[in-house]
Amino acid sequence: MPMRDLPDIIVEPIVRRALEEDLGLAGDVTTNAVVPPNVKARAAIRARKAGTIGGLQPALTAFRLIDPSLKIETGKPDGAWVSGGDTIATLEGSARSLLTAERVALNFLGHLSGVATATARLVEAVRSAGVNVKTRITCTRKTTPGLRALERQAVLLGGGFNHRFNLADAILIKDNHIAVAGGVVAALKAAQARAGHMVQIEIEVDTIEQLLQALAAGAKIVLLDNMSVEEMAEAVRLTAGRAVLEASGGVALETAAAIARTGVDYISSGALTHSAPSLDVALDFETSLRDKPI
Amino acid sequence: MPMRDLPDIIVEPIVRRALEEDLGLAGDVTTNAVVPPNVKARAAIRARKAGTIGGLQPALTAFRLIDPSLKIETGKPDGAWVSGGDTIATLEGSARSLLTAERVALNFLGHLSGVATATARLVEAVRSAGVNVKTRITCTRKTTPGLRALERQAVLLGGGFNHRFNLADAILIKDNHIAVAGGVVAALKAAQARAGHMVQIEIEVDTIEQLLQALAAGAKIVLLDNMSVEEMAEAVRLTAGRAVLEASGGVALETAAAIARTGVDYISSGALTHSAPSLDVALDFETSLRDKPI
Amino acid sequence: MPMRDLPDIIVEPIVRRALEEDLGLAGDVTTNAVVPPNVKARAAIRARKAGTIGGLQPALTAFRLIDPSLKIETGKPDGAWVSGGDTIATLEGSARSLLTAERVALNFLGHLSGVATATARLVEAVRSAGVNVKTRITCTRKTTPGLRALERQAVLLGGGFNHRFNLADAILIKDNHIAVAGGVVAALKAAQARAGHMVQIEIEVDTIEQLLQALAAGAKIVLLDNMSVEEMAEAVRLTAGRAVLEASGGVALETAAAIARTGVDYISSGALTHSAPSLDVALDFETSLRDKPI
Amino acid sequence: MPMRDLPDIIVEPIVRRALEEDLGLAGDVTTNAVVPPNVKARAAIRARKAGTIGGLQPALTAFRLIDPSLKIETGKPDGAWVSGGDTIATLEGSARSLLTAERVALNFLGHLSGVATATARLVEAVRSAGVNVKTRITCTRKTTPGLRALERQAVLLGGGFNHRFNLADAILIKDNHIAVAGGVVAALKAAQARAGHMVQIEIEVDTIEQLLQALAAGAKIVLLDNMSVEEMAEAVRLTAGRAVLEASGGVALETAAAIARTGVDYISSGALTHSAPSLDVALDFETSLRDKPI
Amino acid sequence: MPMRDLPDIIVEPIVRRALEEDLGLAGDVTTNAVVPPNVKARAAIRARKAGTIGGLQPALTAFRLIDPSLKIETGKPDGAWVSGGDTIATLEGSARSLLTAERVALNFLGHLSGVATATARLVEAVRSAGVNVKTRITCTRKTTPGLRALERQAVLLGGGFNHRFNLADAILIKDNHIAVAGGVVAALKAAQARAGHMVQIEIEVDTIEQLLQALAAGAKIVLLDNMSVEEMAEAVRLTAGRAVLEASGGVALETAAAIARTGVDYISSGALTHSAPSLDVALDFETSLRDKPI
Amino acid sequence: MPMRDLPDIIVEPIVRRALEEDLGLAGDVTTNAVVPPNVKARAAIRARKAGTIGGLQPALTAFRLIDPSLKIETGKPDGAWVSGGDTIATLEGSARSLLTAERVALNFLGHLSGVATATARLVEAVRSAGVNVKTRITCTRKTTPGLRALERQAVLLGGGFNHRFNLADAILIKDNHIAVAGGVVAALKAAQARAGHMVQIEIEVDTIEQLLQALAAGAKIVLLDNMSVEEMAEAVRLTAGRAVLEASGGVALETAAAIARTGVDYISSGALTHSAPSLDVALDFETSLRDKPI
Repeated sequence: MPMRDLPDIIVEPIVRRALEEDLGLAGDVTTNAVVPPNVKARAAIRARKAGTIGGLQPALTAFRLIDPSLKIETGKPDGAWVSGGDTIATLEGSARSLLTAERVALNFLGHLSGVATATARLVEAVRSAGVNVKTRITCTRKTTPGLRALERQAVLLGGGFNHRFNLADAILIKDNHIAVAGGVVAALKAAQARAGHMVQIEIEVDTIEQLLQALAAGAKIVLLDNMSVEEMAEAVRLTAGRAVLEASGGVALETAAAIARTGVDYISSGALTHSAPSLDVALDFETSLRDKPI
Repeated sequence: MPMRDLPDIIVEPIVRRALEEDLGLAGDVTTNAVVPPNVKARAAIRARKAGTIGGLQPALTAFRLIDPSLKIETGKPDGAWVSGGDTIATLEGSARSLLTAERVALNFLGHLSGVATATARLVEAVRSAGVNVKTRITCTRKTTPGLRALERQAVLLGGGFNHRFNLADAILIKDNHIAVAGGVVAALKAAQARAGHMVQIEIEVDTIEQLLQALAAGAKIVLLDNMSVEEMAEAVRLTAGRAVLEASGGVALETAAAIARTGVDYISSGALTHSAPSLDVALDFETSLRDKPI
Repeated sequence: MPMRDLPDIIVEPIVRRALEEDLGLAGDVTTNAVVPPNVKARAAIRARKAGTIGGLQPALTAFRLIDPSLKIETGKPDGAWVSGGDTIATLEGSARSLLTAERVALNFLGHLSGVATATARLVEAVRSAGVNVKTRITCTRKTTPGLRALERQAVLLGGGFNHRFNLADAILIKDNHIAVAGGVVAALKAAQARAGHMVQIEIEVDTIEQLLQALAAGAKIVLLDNMSVEEMAEAVRLTAGRAVLEASGGVALETAAAIARTGVDYISSGALTHSAPSLDVALDFETSLRDKPI
Repeated sequence: MPMRDLPDIIVEPIVRRALEEDLGLAGDVTTNAVVPPNVKARAAIRARKAGTIGGLQPALTAFRLIDPSLKIETGKPDGAWVSGGDTIATLEGSARSLLTAERVALNFLGHLSGVATATARLVEAVRSAGVNVKTRITCTRKTTPGLRALERQAVLLGGGFNHRFNLADAILIKDNHIAVAGGVVAALKAAQARAGHMVQIEIEVDTIEQLLQALAAGAKIVLLDNMSVEEMAEAVRLTAGRAVLEASGGVALETAAAIARTGVDYISSGALTHSAPSLDVALDFETSLRDKPI
Repeated sequence: MPMRDLPDIIVEPIVRRALEEDLGLAGDVTTNAVVPPNVKARAAIRARKAGTIGGLQPALTAFRLIDPSLKIETGKPDGAWVSGGDTIATLEGSARSLLTAERVALNFLGHLSGVATATARLVEAVRSAGVNVKTRITCTRKTTPGLRALERQAVLLGGGFNHRFNLADAILIKDNHIAVAGGVVAALKAAQARAGHMVQIEIEVDTIEQLLQALAAGAKIVLLDNMSVEEMAEAVRLTAGRAVLEASGGVALETAAAIARTGVDYISSGALTHSAPSLDVALDFETSLRDKPI
Repeated sequence: MPMRDLPDIIVEPIVRRALEEDLGLAGDVTTNAVVPPNVKARAAIRARKAGTIGGLQPALTAFRLIDPSLKIETGKPDGAWVSGGDTIATLEGSARSLLTAERVALNFLGHLSGVATATARLVEAVRSAGVNVKTRITCTRKTTPGLRALERQAVLLGGGFNHRFNLADAILIKDNHIAVAGGVVAALKAAQARAGHMVQIEIEVDTIEQLLQALAAGAKIVLLDNMSVEEMAEAVRLTAGRAVLEASGGVALETAAAIARTGVDYISSGALTHSAPSLDVALDFETSLRDKPI
C-alpha cells in the first residue's frame, strides 16, 4: 500500500486553496457565533458506505492547516478497504477547529475515496477474468481541473496505474495529430526524431491497419481506440509482444473482464476520475467539553 | 438564461491553474514534435450525449488563454439543452493551439455540464410533481475542492438555486453546533445576537420537536435533515409559513417529486456537485491546412 | 470579547504581503549592519494614547512570521480598552527579529486600533442616547483595499456589527441599480426571483415614497440614504417593524445619538474604516544583552 | 505633474487583490440579479469635496480589469487639484461592469486622494513660511499595509518627497539600533563599514549632543527626533550644511511653518499616510440605455 | 528551428517575477526622474560576441509586459547563430518603456544564449567526430533554480536534446537508490513493478559488472557514470543495442568527440546549464525624439 | 562573516518554487518506487573543489521544506572557504526525504558557491595589489532572473559589496538616459530635483570631459564606463575625493589589481553573477538502515 508518495509541498497548496474557498475572508461565522473558543471535542471520521479510502492525506492536511494542535489518529489509512461504519480517523482538540475544517476535509475524502473505490472495482473486475490475466488499469488526463495529482494518487491507492501526468511528460499521438501530420508513419517519425531518450511515445490507432503501420514504424506503445473485443484480440495477436497495448474507450465494469482476456496490457478509463460518485463519509462528534481556554 | 455572471477575474485564475496542471513547465511535447507551427485548423466542440451545457465560459477561457487569436463561435451557450451530436462551439486558428488547450477545455465542459444536467433533471422531476409545486432545488457546500464557483454557476444554469457560498457568508447551525451550544434555542440565540442584518441564519433540525423549538425561538429558515416524507409534510403544516423550509438528505431523482409535494420550499442535494457524472463532449477537427506561418 | 475569529490561514497571507512589502528582497540592511546576530532583547508594545485595541492578531503574526522563536505575552488583548502608557504585549528574543518586524506590526496595530477606537466611540455615542435605544453600529464596504477582513474584525472588536462582506454574499440594491432596473419595485422583484434562501436583500431608498413602495413589494431590509432625522423618524413610524432599517450617510459622532433615537435598527458608517486616524502605538526596547549566538 | 511612474505590472496585482476581495468567488449578485447584461450606461466620477487627486491610476485599473471594453476619459488627472463637483473621469459601457467595479475604484481613489490632499496641505503650509524656505515634505514607512507603493505615489502627487521605500533600500539607524550597538558612533561606524556606495545612511538623534557625535563620525543625513523648534534651529546652526537634516515627530499643519523656518531640509510625517481622511468621491450614472447585447 | 514551443502561459510568470524583482514596488526611479513620458526612441538589441540565440522569447516578453504598445521586429530568431555586431531585434516606442525593461530582457537573453551557445559548441564537437557518429547531447537536472523550462528550451535551440524535466516524469535510479534498494537488480525490479507504461526507466551504473546486471534485469536505458572512454567502448560492445546508453560525468568540449566515437547514444552535460557563461548582448539606442505625449 | 541576513520569509518562496519545479505535481517517482518509506540514512554534503561556500541557507531550506524532521549539522557555514573533500553539512533522517531534496539543494549550493568563489577571487586579486589599496568589489544588476537576492548575498559572502538592488532603490543615470535627457548636466539636475534624501544618485561617464561636467554639477558618485587604466588614474586625480568612483566594464581577474591601483573606490563586475561557473558539490550517502517506520 503506497504511503506519502506526495510530499506536503505538493498537497498543501491544493488544500489551502480549498480552505480559502470555504472560509472566504471572514471565516466560519456560524462557529464563531455559536461555539465558545474554549470548548474541546472528540470526533470520528467514519465511512457510511463500503469502499477504498483515498484522500485521507489532504483531508487530514485540512485539519492540520486550520489547527496544528489537533491530535489525529488514523484508523484506516489511504488505500484501505472499509465497510460502512468503520472509523477512518479520530480527532481531538478545539471544537471550533474541528467544525471549521470539517467540510473541506470531507469533500476531499469523499471525492478521492470515490475515485479509489471505482478503481478498485475495475481492478477486481479484471482480476476476476482469470489468473493469467495481467492487464493493468490506468487513468487518463480526463481529470477534475485542479485535482489531477490527488486523483492519480487515488487511482494508485485503488490498485491502478498512472498514465502520463500531462502534456509535458510523454508523447501521445492522437487521431487529430495523425490527421495534421499526414498519417501514422509521418507522425511517429516526427515524434521519434524530436523526443529524447526519457520520453515515452504512444500512438493511438483506430484500425488494425493503422496498428500494423505503427508497428512497422517502430511504435513501442499503441493505444487501441474504441475497438471491439474481437479487434483487440486480433491486435494482440498481430502485435505479438512487439509493443505495449492499451485499450481505451467506453470501458465499463461489465466489459472489463472480456477486454482483459484479449491480452491487452492496459485498460484506461476516464470515468475513474471524471465520473466516480463520491464515497459517503461523515464526521461524528463523540463528546464535547467546555474546559479551560485553549 | 443567465450569462457572464462570473467576471473573467474570477474564472481566469481557475482555468489558468488547470492549464498549468496540464502543461507543466515543458508544454505540449506531442504537438511540438508532430504539428508544424504554421498549420491552421477548424474544429467543433460537440456533445455526444444529451444534457444541459455548463462550463462553456471556462472551456472557452482555456482556448483564449492559450491563444487569444483563435476565432470562437458559440453554437449552444451555457444553460442550453443539447442533444447528442449538437455543436456547442466552433474554433478556428492555429492547430497547435487547438490541440494544446483541448483537454483542459473539455474537462471543464464535461464536468460542469454534468452538474448542470443533473440539476436540470432534478428540477424537472420537481416540476413534474404538479403545477402548484413551487419547491426550488439548491446545491450545498459538498462541492469539488477548487471548483465551487463554477459548480454553483452550473447549478444555476441547470435551473437550480445556490445555497450559501461558504462558511463566511451565512450562518447554518448544524447538529454538532447544537450539541456544543447546548440545544436548539441556545444556539439560535447566540447566532441572532452576533449576526448583523445582512447575514441569514438557518438551523438544522432532526425532529419535529426541534423544529417547534426553533420556530418558537424565531428561526426564519430551517433545514429538515433526513426526515421522512410524512415528517416533512407535518413540518410544513406546523410551520405554516413562519419559516422557509429546506429538505435535505438522500434526495434522489425518484424521491424528489414526493418531497416537493410536501410543500417544502427548497430541496438541497449534495450529489448535484459531488457525484454528477461528466457529460460526454468532444473536439472534432474538421479541416486542417498548412499555410503561411502564424 | 471576540477572539481568534479569523483563522491564521486568513490572516497570515495579509501579514506576509506586508512583510514582503517592507523587507523587499534584501531584508533589513540597517539591522544587518548594526546589530550582531547574537544580541537578545526584551521589548514592550505600548499605547501612547487611549483607545480600543484592534489588530493585535496580525501584529503578533508579523513577529511570529519573522521569528517563530520569539516569546510573546499579551497584556491587553484585541478588544480591550487601553489608556496611554498601557502595555499591550511584551516580546523577548533576538534583537534583530524584533527590529525587523517592528514597523509592519505597528502599522497593523495602529491602523486597526484606530478603526476599533472609532467604532467604540460611535457605539458609546449611541449608547448614551438612552437605555431603550437598541440601534447597532455597522461598517460598510468603504474599506481600505486589501484590509477588509481585518478592518471588519476591528469593527467587531469596537462593539460594532458587520455589513455584507462583499458583492458576492448579499444583495444591496442601490440608486443606480434602481435607475437601471426601472424603479424600486422592479428591482426588488428581480432580486427576489433570483436570490436563494440564504441571501439577504436590502434596498436603498432616498424618500419616504420609495420606502413605502419597497415595503409594499416585500422588502425586509431597507437602507435610508441621507435622510434627515425627521424623515428617519417618519420612516420608522411607517415601517412599524415590517423591515429592518439602516440609516446611512454623513453619520458623525455628534449626530449619532439623535439618529439612534429615531428607532432605526442600524447606523452604518464608512468613515469607521476609510477615515479613522491611526492609534499611536510604539515598541520600546527595555533591555538588550549580547550573549551566546542564537 | 508626475504621470505613470508606476508601471501596470506594479499596480495591477494590488488592484486585482482588491477586486478579488470585493467580488469573492461568486461575483456581484445584486447586479447579476437586477441589471440585464445588455444595458449600457454612462457615468462620471466626481469629487464631492476639494482636494488633490491621487489614485486615479488604480481606480481606472479596477474598471479596466473588470471590463477592458469600457471607454474611459480622464477629466482631472492624478495630481490635479479639484473643487467639489468637478468631474474626474467619465466612463461608458456595460452598466454591469460599471456597477461591479465602482466600489473598489472609489476606495482607491478616495483613500489616495486623501493622502495626496493631506500632503498638498502640508506642502502649502511650508510654502507659506516664506520665500526662502526650501524645506521638503516627506512620508515615512508608517503606511497602510499593502498600499505603500500607491501611498508614496500619492505623496509625490501632493508635492511631497519619498523617504526610503522599505528596510531593504536604505539605512536608518534608530534609537533602538543605537542602544544595541553601544552608541551613535559605534552604530554609524558599523553601518559605514557594511554599506555599499549606493545605500544612503541616516541616523536618528534625540539630542544636540548626539547630533554632534553623529556629525563628527561623518553622518551625512540626520533625523532630529521629537526636538523642539528651538533645538531644531540650534541643530541647523551647528550642522552648518555638513549634513541633511530631517525633522520628525508630531508634525502638524499648525506647526509645519515654524519647523520649516528653522532651516531643516526635510519634514517627515507619518500621518500623511496613516491618518489622512478619505476624500469624498462618487460615481454618478448619467444615462442608461438598454440596447443590443454586449 | 523550433519556435514557440513554450506557450506564453508558461513563459510569462517567469518573466513577470524577474520584472518584479527588478522594479520592486517603486518602479524605475531613474527613468521617472530623467526621461519625460513623451519621449519616443528606437533601439536595437545586438550581439557583441558570436553565439546561438536563446531566450529571445522571454526577453521580448519582458518588453511586452512593460508596454504592449512597443513595436518589435525580430532580426535573428531563437536558435539562430549570430556574429558579434548582428542585430537580434529592434524595438520602437516609449523611451521610458525601453529603458525600464532593458536589463531584465538582456539578463534572460544573455544567460539563455549562453546555454544555447555552449550546447551548440558541444553538438559541433560531436559532429566533428565523424559522419557515422549519431550521439546526441542532452542536458540534466543541474539547472539554475527557477529557470529549468527556459534552459531546457535553450538546449533544444542549441541542437541538443532534453533529459527528464524533473523527478516526476521519469525514473532515474542513481547510485544512492541502488545502495538503499540493495543492488541494481532489486532497484530495477522495484521500478518496473511500479511504473506505468508511459514512464521511462533509466539506471545508473559505475561498472561493467553493474551494466551486465542491469541488462540482464531488462534495463532499456543505462547511464554510464564517470567511465573512461575505454570502459564506455566496452559497454557499447557488450550492450549490443539492447539498451540506450548515456555517458555522463566530466564531459568537456575536448573529450566529447572521443566519447561519441565509442558509440554511446547520449552524452549528458550539467555544465551546459549550470556553468555556461553569459553571451554578451546589449541594447543600443539609435534615435530618440520628443514628440506628442504618449 | 555575515549570517542569516536574509530572513526565511525571503528565502523560502524562492526555494519553494525550485522544489515545485523539480517535483512537479507527482513527486519523486523514482524514490517512491525504489525506496521504502521506513529507510533512514545519513548523508554528507561535500565540496569536490575548493571555493567559498554560498547558498547553504537555501540548500538547507530545501531539505527542511521537504522534511522538517531531518537532523542537519553545518560543518562549513556560508562564507567559509573549503578545500575539495571538506564536509559542508551532514544530514540524517528519512532516505526518501534526502533523495527527494538533493538536486534542488545542490543546484542552489553549487551556483551560489560559484558566485561567492568568483567574488572571493576578485577580492583577493585586488588585495594583492598592495596594502594601501582600498578598492571594493561590487556586483551589478546583471544577475540570473529570480535569484538576485541570493546572488547578492553570495557576493557579500565572498567579500564583495552590493550595488543597488534594483531600479527602484537608487538612481543610476546611464548613457541612454544622458542621451535622452540632453547631456550629463541636464540629466543630473533632473535627478537631483526629483530624488529624496534617501536615494543615492550615480552617473555613468565615458570620458574625462563628461566626468568633469558631472563633478561640476555636483555628482557624488560616478561610474567610469570602459575606461582604460590610464584614463581611470586621470579620473581619480581630477576627482580628488569629491566623488566616489566606480570602475566598470570588462573587469577580469588579470586586470583587477591594475585597476585597483588607480585608486578607484569600487570595481563592479557583472560576470560575478552572470558567468561564474558552478562549484562542484555532492551529496554522499554514508549509511542507510531500514528500521521502524518513520
